Amino acid sequence: MSLRIGVIGAGAMGADHIRTLTRSVPSARVSEVYDFDVETARAVARPAFADVASSAEALIDSSSVDAIIIASPDQTHADLVRSCLAVGKHVLCEKPLAVNPEESLGVVEAEVAGGRRLVQVGFMRRYDPGYNELRDELRSGRLGDVRLVHHVHRNASSHTSATDAGIVTGSMIHELDTVRWLLDDEIAEIEIISPVSEGLRDPQLATIRMSRGTIVSAEVFVNASYGYDIRCEVVGTSGTAELRPLARIGTRRGGAESTAIRSDFVAHFAAAYRLELASWVEDALRDAVRGPSAWDGHVANVVAAAGVLSLTTGQRQPVTLTARPDLYA
Amino acid sequence: MSLRIGVIGAGAMGADHIRTLTRSVPSARVSEVYDFDVETARAVARPAFADVASSAEALIDSSSVDAIIIASPDQTHADLVRSCLAVGKHVLCEKPLAVNPEESLGVVEAEVAGGRRLVQVGFMRRYDPGYNELRDELRSGRLGDVRLVHHVHRNASSHTSATDAGIVTGSMIHELDTVRWLLDDEIAEIEIISPVSEGLRDPQLATIRMSRGTIVSAEVFVNASYGYDIRCEVVGTSGTAELRPLARIGTRRGGAESTAIRSDFVAHFAAAYRLELASWVEDALRDAVRGPSAWDGHVANVVAAAGVLSLTTGQRQPVTLTARPDLYA
Amino acid sequence: MSLRIGVIGAGAMGADHIRTLTRSVPSARVSEVYDFDVETARAVARPAFADVASSAEALIDSSSVDAIIIASPDQTHADLVRSCLAVGKHVLCEKPLAVNPEESLGVVEAEVAGGRRLVQVGFMRRYDPGYNELRDELRSGRLGDVRLVHHVHRNASSHTSATDAGIVTGSMIHELDTVRWLLDDEIAEIEIISPVSEGLRDPQLATIRMSRGTIVSAEVFVNASYGYDIRCEVVGTSGTAELRPLARIGTRRGGAESTAIRSDFVAHFAAAYRLELASWVEDALRDAVRGPSAWDGHVANVVAAAGVLSLTTGQRQPVTLTARPDLYA
Amino acid sequence: MSLRIGVIGAGAMGADHIRTLTRSVPSARVSEVYDFDVETARAVARPAFADVASSAEALIDSSSVDAIIIASPDQTHADLVRSCLAVGKHVLCEKPLAVNPEESLGVVEAEVAGGRRLVQVGFMRRYDPGYNELRDELRSGRLGDVRLVHHVHRNASSHTSATDAGIVTGSMIHELDTVRWLLDDEIAEIEIISPVSEGLRDPQLATIRMSRGTIVSAEVFVNASYGYDIRCEVVGTSGTAELRPLARIGTRRGGAESTAIRSDFVAHFAAAYRLELASWVEDALRDAVRGPSAWDGHVANVVAAAGVLSLTTGQRQPVTLTARPDLYA
Repeated sequence: MSLRIGVIGAGAMGADHIRTLTRSVPSARVSEVYDFDVETARAVARPAFADVASSAEALIDSSSVDAIIIASPDQTHADLVRSCLAVGKHVLCEKPLAVNPEESLGVVEAEVAGGRRLVQVGFMRRYDPGYNELRDELRSGRLGDVRLVHHVHRNASSHTSATDAGIVTGSMIHELDTVRWLLDDEIAEIEIISPVSEGLRDPQLATIRMSRGTIVSAEVFVNASYGYDIRCEVVGTSGTAELRPLARIGTRRGGAESTAIRSDFVAHFAAAYRLELASWVEDALRDAVRGPSAWDGHVANVVAAAGVLSLTTGQRQPVTLTARPDLYA
Repeated sequence: MSLRIGVIGAGAMGADHIRTLTRSVPSARVSEVYDFDVETARAVARPAFADVASSAEALIDSSSVDAIIIASPDQTHADLVRSCLAVGKHVLCEKPLAVNPEESLGVVEAEVAGGRRLVQVGFMRRYDPGYNELRDELRSGRLGDVRLVHHVHRNASSHTSATDAGIVTGSMIHELDTVRWLLDDEIAEIEIISPVSEGLRDPQLATIRMSRGTIVSAEVFVNASYGYDIRCEVVGTSGTAELRPLARIGTRRGGAESTAIRSDFVAHFAAAYRLELASWVEDALRDAVRGPSAWDGHVANVVAAAGVLSLTTGQRQPVTLTARPDLYA
Repeated sequence: MSLRIGVIGAGAMGADHIRTLTRSVPSARVSEVYDFDVETARAVARPAFADVASSAEALIDSSSVDAIIIASPDQTHADLVRSCLAVGKHVLCEKPLAVNPEESLGVVEAEVAGGRRLVQVGFMRRYDPGYNELRDELRSGRLGDVRLVHHVHRNASSHTSATDAGIVTGSMIHELDTVRWLLDDEIAEIEIISPVSEGLRDPQLATIRMSRGTIVSAEVFVNASYGYDIRCEVVGTSGTAELRPLARIGTRRGGAESTAIRSDFVAHFAAAYRLELASWVEDALRDAVRGPSAWDGHVANVVAAAGVLSLTTGQRQPVTLTARPDLYA
Repeated sequence: MSLRIGVIGAGAMGADHIRTLTRSVPSARVSEVYDFDVETARAVARPAFADVASSAEALIDSSSVDAIIIASPDQTHADLVRSCLAVGKHVLCEKPLAVNPEESLGVVEAEVAGGRRLVQVGFMRRYDPGYNELRDELRSGRLGDVRLVHHVHRNASSHTSATDAGIVTGSMIHELDTVRWLLDDEIAEIEIISPVSEGLRDPQLATIRMSRGTIVSAEVFVNASYGYDIRCEVVGTSGTAELRPLARIGTRRGGAESTAIRSDFVAHFAAAYRLELASWVEDALRDAVRGPSAWDGHVANVVAAAGVLSLTTGQRQPVTLTARPDLYA
């Protein structure tokens, strides 16, 4: 039995998901595709033998669609997810779940009102083999008590995070989610500063305090020029562990020993996306959600908003959450 | 449309192929499984919703089987492949194609007689992303003219290559095929020596001369104790390129910075096996063979036999091939 | 012509300096040694064929001593340096120059009053080959504009930095000096926090803003357990550069590929100490000071005091300096 | 008390030795310099405050010279060493000790006739910190029984090894000595081949069998174009150890993470040269020789000659030594 999936948004991310599902997830079938630009939708749907839907709502309601992937522009996410909830279908929504915490709380409340878990947010790093080895190492106790986590997140250049706030809500949001999952702890406080005071405030350096005390640093530099570079080091009282750069070959040429650093973040996390989709499909088929929840998506939004406020005011900001609904226990 | 695959041999390799096809290759379906041990066949067939065949020949002849994977003991390979040829079905045969060059030549002749390419041999390294990056680098011309290739192939311990000859035909055979594919050149001469003269002659060091002059060294050490370690360096007149060790995390603990070296060769080449299977299925569906051919399997056997003779006699051995049939042009 | 050196303090650091001078600096001769513990002084002086002085003041005044190295306890530094100034002799004083900014300002004023540069402070990292390559890379312009610097400074365990303030004034002080020298810029603001709130506040994480905007992070963890680990990454708009771990051999054993991380900081910076001493001797012989000055030692103290205040108050602290005397232009 | 040293040959190597002695070896003093080119001799002697000798023989005989370093052209070595023996002075002779085994045997016989060890050969790798860590690891037993050693020796380009034989006697000779010292074993057999059959036969690949069975491979490529690269891996039954590349900083720029590979072999082995000279001076002052002996120099020549014969004839060659004189026990 296979899951018939409707994909809303056929841009780079949506198209990549469709390709991955078609090539690598036997229990999934992309049945419908919708995009604001119908030509794009057609081009992407064709090789998957999928139909083109007339609207996002029509796709969500379609009897040929069991579950939905949302990869449309950020501001459409919250409403589309609520539509999925309304018809009781599983939905994998690309991050962010909504463009602000008020909206994401609304999604959470709608899911809670329905009394049933249907929403997963696309924090794909939780499926990345490297991050999972890091988390296993941490949980093994071999590092002792974790005191610090250092993140580095660099892009060669970025059009998608073109505002000060966008760097937080579009890029750093990955670190904000990852560290909660890595440490199984909540963010209590965040401060974000930048060495740049005029024009785009890039890079940004966040200093985060978790509720159990651990301090987390996160450098995000979306115009780092040299390539896409994701690092994470966990520092414990008995040792440290860190992600290693991905490089399959090394060369020696012209006075240098080198490995390539690519710029393509989709390629960098290709295994994570594949495992995320396979796992989500498997879960949806048995009506479960094990991945990052609507609550996780909402918390990321709350923390990101506090971060943006810190960047603007120059002050450290507390992170205040409403009580976590029992649905997410 | 999906390819219905029958798998002969449900040991570690066969079971892994079935798992990979079921989980990751949407256009494939494992329809039948045969194993000498019927309980093993049942255990492996069940999660794939496949039937258990009563014999290898019945599986090959079955109207529910479009193509066959052979992962049974080495001495059965040649006959089974010939049976597949007899019924005109595509077959992916684990290496070696046959247990000696005479037998593998027989398979080649049978395929040539049929006038149609149906056989692929399981030299999965040709699908490994690392080896492919290495080959792309080499073909880019950025290394200049290739003068040397150095291989290292170490296992923690090995039961499968438990004889002097078995180390060549079971382990080193991967290097013997890889270097032909990397360099697009034939092996002209081989010499194999060992530092060990009593008991199992392990490690072995092969020195190979290609027909265009390039010299290739290949260390194979199947009881290297520390883990599974595959290395390859290509040395050109303008630079060198080499495979990098696979490690997703590094740790610092107790006075050492470390990365893990695992012992499991199937896990090491997981991506290669997945890509090999996906590519073979795609090719079989359009009645093509792009992967390592029966001829490649035969050549590997000829070279391995020369290597074993060299190890026994202490003399360098020429590699003499019959003319390559046009079918493999 | 050789420089006759008197060494005050024959503990680990003093003894190591004497050994280095004797073995590797032809133009130096250790003529006198003083230590509070006369037996220690004798044991260290003997292989250097040096005399044992009856007091630090006698050593400073001695006609057999051209220049002085101070490696005695921190609280004695300022007075001893002033005594050297009083007799017009060159002095290399281990860091810190004094135990607080008031005292170090006194040393600066005394040197300025004398009108002649005689004092060098033992910030040996400025002589480390690795840090110098890093600085050369930065100055080459190949990294573009520097936006961030990340420091890591870990000891296996530490008795010498056994207080919250001591971690700043004894360990982090190296990063506080290094970054001024690397960036040729002054520290404008510092904030230090710790994940630990009870007992020794270790590790500590400093966030520093330079007067031209660059942000510097510095993790100092003096009980990191696994070894002595010094890292520094400079992040520019065109690229990054970082120190590489020092390891002469790597091993593969028992499922791991490893390099050793030693715990001995003197061994780690052996080349830096050797080059520092050779350079200081060469300079003293021609009555010059090119290394870190009394002013540098004072600035490090001012910044460290602001850091300690930040750690105590939980507030970011500005760094306020009096005008730099012309003597140090 | 200091050793007054006469240096014969003021080319790159001689000049570097003089600089190292002057800057870093307190117990040495360069008293006289001789070079065929008197201007060169003067230029090099001046900063060391050394005299220029009128001839090599005058230098050797001079009452101002306690010990001699020979860094003149290879073909002069044997006669000059014999002159040193004749006057009973310690001599450090750059490799090779002589240009053929007959000549080097003559030197050995002359030293034996004198009944006193005076000759050391400049195989500086025995003093290299990396090679020494490798040897310590090997001797610790942690690698188990050593089965294989792999050497790589590459130069960016070479004028000094401009003939087929010169690659063996001028470059590979370092590996030939190193492996005897590393393994404390003798070379029984050598074979050298090259992928190049016309023009300079570069690279060369040697396969060596030690008398206890260990197999050693040594790639020497003197026109490898990319830089000076020295590697050595020791493979034992319990693990492996290898030299790590020397790099103090790494950079990330333009899609690549890189470390520099320099071309200067003197800089690469700077620490080895410094420690070699310091140790030789210390030994000479107490009339001892602990470094590589005339016998070691002779054995290297015997093996190199066998290697050259192998390269010429295409046949593996046995290495036959006369009995080692008791003087070298």
